[in-house]
Parts: sequence; C-alpha cells; structure tokens
Amino acid sequence: MASDAQQACFEAGIKFGSLYHQFAGTPVSPSSTRSLETAMAESIENQPFCESVSVEIHDDRVADAIDHENGYTELTGSLMDVEMRIDHEGVVVNTQMTMRDGYPLMELVSVVDGGD
Amino acid sequence: MASDAQQACFEAGIKFGSLYHQFAGTPVSPSSTRSLETAMAESIENQPFCESVSVEIHDDRVADAIDHENGYTELTGSLMDVEMRIDHEGVVVNTQMTMRDGYPLMELVSVVDGGD
Amino acid sequence: MASDAQQACFEAGIKFGSLYHQFAGTPVSPSSTRSLETAMAESIENQPFCESVSVEIHDDRVADAIDHENGYTELTGSLMDVEMRIDHEGVVVNTQMTMRDGYPLMELVSVVDGGD
Amino acid sequence: MASDAQQACFEAGIKFGSLYHQFAGTPVSPSSTRSLETAMAESIENQPFCESVSVEIHDDRVADAIDHENGYTELTGSLMDVEMRIDHEGVVVNTQMTMRDGYPLMELVSVVDGGD
Repeated sequence: MASDAQQACFEAGIKFGSLYHQFAGTPVSPSSTRSLETAMAESIENQPFCESVSVEIHDDRVADAIDHENGYTELTGSLMDVEMRIDHEGVVVNTQMTMRDGYPLMELVSVVDGGD
Repeated sequence: MASDAQQACFEAGIKFGSLYHQFAGTPVSPSSTRSLETAMAESIENQPFCESVSVEIHDDRVADAIDHENGYTELTGSLMDVEMRIDHEGVVVNTQMTMRDGYPLMELVSVVDGGD
Repeated sequence: MASDAQQACFEAGIKFGSLYHQFAGTPVSPSSTRSLETAMAESIENQPFCESVSVEIHDDRVADAIDHENGYTELTGSLMDVEMRIDHEGVVVNTQMTMRDGYPLMELVSVVDGGD
Repeated sequence: MASDAQQACFEAGIKFGSLYHQFAGTPVSPSSTRSLETAMAESIENQPFCESVSVEIHDDRVADAIDHENGYTELTGSLMDVEMRIDHEGVVVNTQMTMRDGYPLMELVSVVDGGD
C-alpha cells in the first residue's frame, strides 16, 4: 500500500532514531571518539536495508563540551555528523544529521528509485 | 526534493527507532508496566510531527519473560505493541510495531496525503 | 569477602548508573515530566535490594533547557534530583544525585548497618 | 562518613550500571562484536576512578541468539562477560559480571585498601 520509496524512507528514519537514542548519553572524551564512531556505524549497519553508516564525532566539540573536572562529556547530537545510505527494494535513500539552529536535524538528502 | 509523503514516512521511522532504542533494556515487571507505557508515549509525543503514540506492554508476556528470581525482566520488542500517528505537512502516517516471526516488525499501516 | 556494607554500596551504585544511562537522552518537556519521573522510579525499584527511588525533574530547568523551536529537550542529570534507598542484608544505604559544579554528582548520604 | 572502601564500591557499582544500561539493546552480530567491545570499554573508562574495563562479547552466543532472518540480535547481559577495576582514594575494587542461573550477576571480586 505504501510505495517502495515511502517504505525506504520509513526504514531510513528507523535507523536514525535507533542510532541517536541508543548512543546518546554515552560518556565520551577526545581519547574515545574513534572507537565510539566505529561501534555506532557497525552496530546500525546490522539493521535491515542499511547499506552504510558514517559517524564523525568532532574532537574539538567534545573538548569544548567538557564542562567539569572529570574530563569527559556525554554524547549528544551537537557533537557529531552522521550520514547513512538505505537500500530498500531498489530505492536508495541518502540521509544526514547536521546541526541546524541548535537542533540536530535529521533529513533526507536524496531518494532515488532504481526502477527495474 | 523528497515528497511530503516521503518526509512524513521518514519522520515516522525516526519516532519508532527513538522509542525502541531509548527504552529497550528498561527493567520492567507487571507492577511497573502502566507507568512505563505512559512515559514512553508522552516522551515520544514530544518529538516534531508526532500526533499520538500508544504503547501496550503485555503483563502476561512480562510475567512469562521473568526467568530468574529477581522478579523483573528487561523491556524488548517482544513484550509490547506500539501504534503511532505522524502528521507532517498534511500527510498523515499510521504505523505499528507487532511481533512477526519472532521479530518486532515496525511497519507503515497507511499514508494519507490530505492534499489541499 | 567484601563486607555487607561494601556489597550494599556496590548495589546502590548499580542502581544509580542504571537509572542515569537508561533514561538520559529521553525527550522531555514540562508536559511529560511527571510520567517520566514515575516510570524512572518504578523501573529501578524493580532491581534487587532497591527499597525506594524518588526522581524529581524540575519543570523550570526543563523549560530553560529547551533551546530550539521543537518544544522539548533531552533528559540529562542537570534537570533532576534523585534519591534512593538500598537495603542489602540489613545494611541500609541512602544515596542522592545533585548538581555540583556543573556535574551531576552521585553520592552516598548514609550507610547504616542494622547488624545484630 | 562512608568509608573509603564503601565509596570505592559505590563508584564500582555506578560504572557497572552505566555500562549495562547504556549499551543493552545495541544491535550486534558476529561481525560487529569487536568494535562494540572496544567502544564500551573506552567509554566507561572515561568515568571517574575507573582504571580499566574489559568487555568480552561471545561470538558464539551472539550467533545463537539470532532468532530471525535479519542476521543480528540485541546486546544483553547473557552475551558478554565484563571485568572492571576501580581505584578510589587508594582502594582498589575488582568487579565482574557473569551469567548465574540465567541472570547477569554483577559482583565484587575483591576490595583492597592500599592504606598508606
């Protein structure tokens, strides 16, 4: 009933919500950004129709966010950029999360129906 | 570039991934199902374009899942049904999560473009 | 090998870490604070040796933390106070989390061994 | 008021609850266990007084837990062993989590007060 493209966009959204709410709150410092990026990407790539996930946690933003003496902060959307590619029944959806007016905006970049 | 209906489906997916991965793992027993249902629904209803969320955690499934002496289990998709309605720019999307072959399947139930 | 009091303090810590990292990141607005408080408390009270949990999410701090147009924020330690009482083998431990120099400090308030 | 050893045990508990509830529910397959182990350990090592964390996610248990066609499962305590060493004011606490009668039991292994 929903079109293939709509289904693909729905799947893309699921991955974004999953990634964000699974990992938000994780303790992070400049010395642990690389391992967290990798784990986040590989974890979400397990989900159905998820072709690739790229997570970039900005070390400088992490350093700036450390506002107490304990030397770490908690992961939030403001510290990272995320890109994902979903492929569902031949429809390829590219998505990204970037900061927009202080809000980590998740958005569709392109929806391409490969047809047949 | 993406259509309004595609955007609405993307938003619907975000809410489902958020709900699932924020609350999966929460300690739950038959005595705490009602408060958790309410908190999950009200929490996700805060997100943009989310009209309504309904969460039903099945007390009998929770009781059956308690497999040790401590009297509680951890929330997973197999213990609950979820329905959501998203309204994005006049496109109304109804979604649900139900168990299908042992997997908590999130799916689009209807996508209706109210047009203008 | 560890004393009963040490065991009780270990259990108290588990509950605090659980509560914080299960619920940090949850979307919250002044209209959903009450249900989230209740769910957090009832959820963690399911855990072994956990006598009582009290969560107070401050509506005014939630309102102040909303920094974009979407009308909600994400739960962090700076928005709430938590108190817990653990009873492990007759040792009663009272704990609290409050803000201290910008850090949500979890601490032991009292450790009382009922002994015999 | 609480002794140094009690404080150290409390800190040890916090780390265990944090690790468990931050990462429970993470999608995992045999191809993503190594990155998740590393991220979990490095993340929690950021927390105060946490000297070292070792996480072992068992590939065979992950493979056995995959009960649907999508090729992954969600992280739970039954899939991993965890060891941690906390050092708080000269008191060294060793802790572990292992499966015991179907329950992921977190426990104190040793509490050694280095004294002075």
